Amino acid sequence: MSGLERLSLNQITTKRWSIAEAVQGCVDAGVPAIGLWRDKVAETGVAEAAKLVRDAGLAVSSLCRGGFLTVEGPVAHRAALVENFRALEEAAELGADTLVMVVGGLPEGSRDLAGARARVADLIAELAPHAGDAGVRMAIEPLHPMFCADRAVVSTLGQALDLAEQHPVEQVGVVVDSYHVWWDPDLPRQIERAGPRIASYQVCDWTLPLPADALLGRGHVGDGHIDFRTLTDQVAAAGYTGWIEVEIFNEQIWDTPGEQTLKTVTERHLAHLGSRPGGT
Amino acid sequence: MSGLERLSLNQITTKRWSIAEAVQGCVDAGVPAIGLWRDKVAETGVAEAAKLVRDAGLAVSSLCRGGFLTVEGPVAHRAALVENFRALEEAAELGADTLVMVVGGLPEGSRDLAGARARVADLIAELAPHAGDAGVRMAIEPLHPMFCADRAVVSTLGQALDLAEQHPVEQVGVVVDSYHVWWDPDLPRQIERAGPRIASYQVCDWTLPLPADALLGRGHVGDGHIDFRTLTDQVAAAGYTGWIEVEIFNEQIWDTPGEQTLKTVTERHLAHLGSRPGGT
Repeated sequence: MSGLERLSLNQITTKRWSIAEAVQGCVDAGVPAIGLWRDKVAETGVAEAAKLVRDAGLAVSSLCRGGFLTVEGPVAHRAALVENFRALEEAAELGADTLVMVVGGLPEGSRDLAGARARVADLIAELAPHAGDAGVRMAIEPLHPMFCADRAVVSTLGQALDLAEQHPVEQVGVVVDSYHVWWDPDLPRQIERAGPRIASYQVCDWTLPLPADALLGRGHVGDGHIDFRTLTDQVAAAGYTGWIEVEIFNEQIWDTPGEQTLKTVTERHLAHLGSRPGGT
Repeated sequence: MSGLERLSLNQITTKRWSIAEAVQGCVDAGVPAIGLWRDKVAETGVAEAAKLVRDAGLAVSSLCRGGFLTVEGPVAHRAALVENFRALEEAAELGADTLVMVVGGLPEGSRDLAGARARVADLIAELAPHAGDAGVRMAIEPLHPMFCADRAVVSTLGQALDLAEQHPVEQVGVVVDSYHVWWDPDLPRQIERAGPRIASYQVCDWTLPLPADALLGRGHVGDGHIDFRTLTDQVAAAGYTGWIEVEIFNEQIWDTPGEQTLKTVTERHLAHLGSRPGGT
């Protein structure tokens, strides 16, 4: 028992690394799983990426990401379908059973939030059976409300569950990402409701001040304001026994050598997430 | 009918102006009401501020702000009570029937969000009868979730209503501020639920990118992503007929001459808020 049995490195956390480097980094650090990004997979090639991960004995906790479903008009609608079919196929080939879905923000110039949300529901419904066929579960990720306009019109776990529950549990699940949901007064109830819909548990901390690019303000677990003990206990009580994936967007962390970042990631995992029932 | 009958200038929007200047600006622009800030009132003196507003024939739509109720320990608890008693008394003397409450963030070093929220509920309960005695309604303002750690642990309208509904409607209400709540998938339902609890409707727009200081990213109505027609119709359908208060935190707007800002404020009010039933 190293205490790292459930830890996964989402490769965005070591953004400067190629897949080959990130895979080797995980092996060296004793991290048994990795979350992959499609742009990195494209650089390496899907087959080669799959081989690298498999040969190293790593699991693929998730593929980031499908989504961007708020598009308007039939041409963009079909393009979104095609792109997400591709993402599902890549996930299957990589051995990832989870495709993280970031649903997209308001189209340029639009203020029709309800309309954008309705289009997300429609496209999820169209994609769900294909996810089933591919043996990959789409995991709808609610993003922090500060990203509602430009990145994801799904803003709460409850809203993600309203979407997911329209479909079989093996086709559509949700992501619980600490950064995006920690503030939600309804969170304990929604995590309990989510139960087997939880397809991914991602962690990083809420640190202040927010940086110039609000996307990049996330911190190592333990550096911010989130109570990871309580959150992780709630996720465990809901029945989740899967990967705990560390996903950090932070320019300063990206500028740190990957080995050092992974050292911090494993230390923080052991200190904040790794020593409780359900947390190891 | 100028179309400005329900418009109020929250004086933070013309931050460089004293109360005397802001009052004169409102008179010159045909704006019938003003929302005051306690630091500006302190500069001028409460009695003098009250006289300035009264002599100009303006209404006071709200006083900003009471709150900061997440403090720990008996000394800080008593200090919070004293400070909010003072704010209630100032509001009464100024002729403001509404005291905006920003409840405060997590205490330094604390990650106990549930505890902070419980202390808010306790202090609201202690303050409510005093608000009743003063003839001033406390209006709990949910702040955007990106301010949860450092400014307000009340993050949604539903959460604010859960607090307010413990008390008589004339003692505790809520603020609907477009900037803070526009993203909420549950908003239409919560506005309907709020009904007579809506004590204040504040407006400004969600613009991107967020600035270095996330507090100061708010834009003039019409410059961003919020659908003010729909939101204002929902607030009107809930029965709200009170002031529409323009409150903008934005360094660039603050650096604009106040007269010019007020010109933009009135134009945008007429264009986006002023020409519908319930919106004039």
